[in-house]
Amino acid sequence: MPKNSAKQSASTLRPRLRITCGEDIALGPGKAELLQYLKETGSIAEAARRIGMSYMRAWTLLKTMERCFKQPLVKAGRGGRQGGGATLTETGLKALALYQQMDEESLRAIQPAWQEMRRLLRS
Amino acid sequence: MPKNSAKQSASTLRPRLRITCGEDIALGPGKAELLQYLKETGSIAEAARRIGMSYMRAWTLLKTMERCFKQPLVKAGRGGRQGGGATLTETGLKALALYQQMDEESLRAIQPAWQEMRRLLRS
Repeated sequence: MPKNSAKQSASTLRPRLRITCGEDIALGPGKAELLQYLKETGSIAEAARRIGMSYMRAWTLLKTMERCFKQPLVKAGRGGRQGGGATLTETGLKALALYQQMDEESLRAIQPAWQEMRRLLRS
Repeated sequence: MPKNSAKQSASTLRPRLRITCGEDIALGPGKAELLQYLKETGSIAEAARRIGMSYMRAWTLLKTMERCFKQPLVKAGRGGRQGGGATLTETGLKALALYQQMDEESLRAIQPAWQEMRRLLRS
């Protein structure tokens, strides 16, 4: 059997920020990814396909987000609802940008401690 | 029906830092919690009980951690293996402290963006 332990054992660090509202998750890594793909593709169906989730699942995640935010995050795009065409609203773009900003700021802030932690890890 | 929507809709933000080594999760919120309770209780069984997980599950999480770190994180304590008595090693204490430090630093760094995000949320 081929050995590729170097690749297998690479240690990584990921912030996985989770914003809750009551029992719901308003925004987390999965929902942020969905918004990002929606922004890129302009289609719920296509965004879901790229992530590997069902259209129904993507729809459910979007509905949960809508409950948590004051304003809609998504509006029907040129394809209309039937085609799943959708674009991010101003609030949607803002929420996504803030999430990504928090993600980057978090990663930057923890670099010194992370470098120390890496010395304890095998890889 | 009584209304307690104020409580239900409070929005929260939690960094849920995940350190991976290859396919394994070396340290994340769940494993850090286990280490913290282990530190407090000196017992795998008691730590597991407080978290609400089985002893076997706690044991499996510890085994995964041991694969990822260069040095053991846990050593048998006064109760011995049979009693599940266990304390954190120097590496275990260091890993837990660094994780908690990263958690705090992450939260601090993202406060400005989080305050902006809150304005978009219902609560």
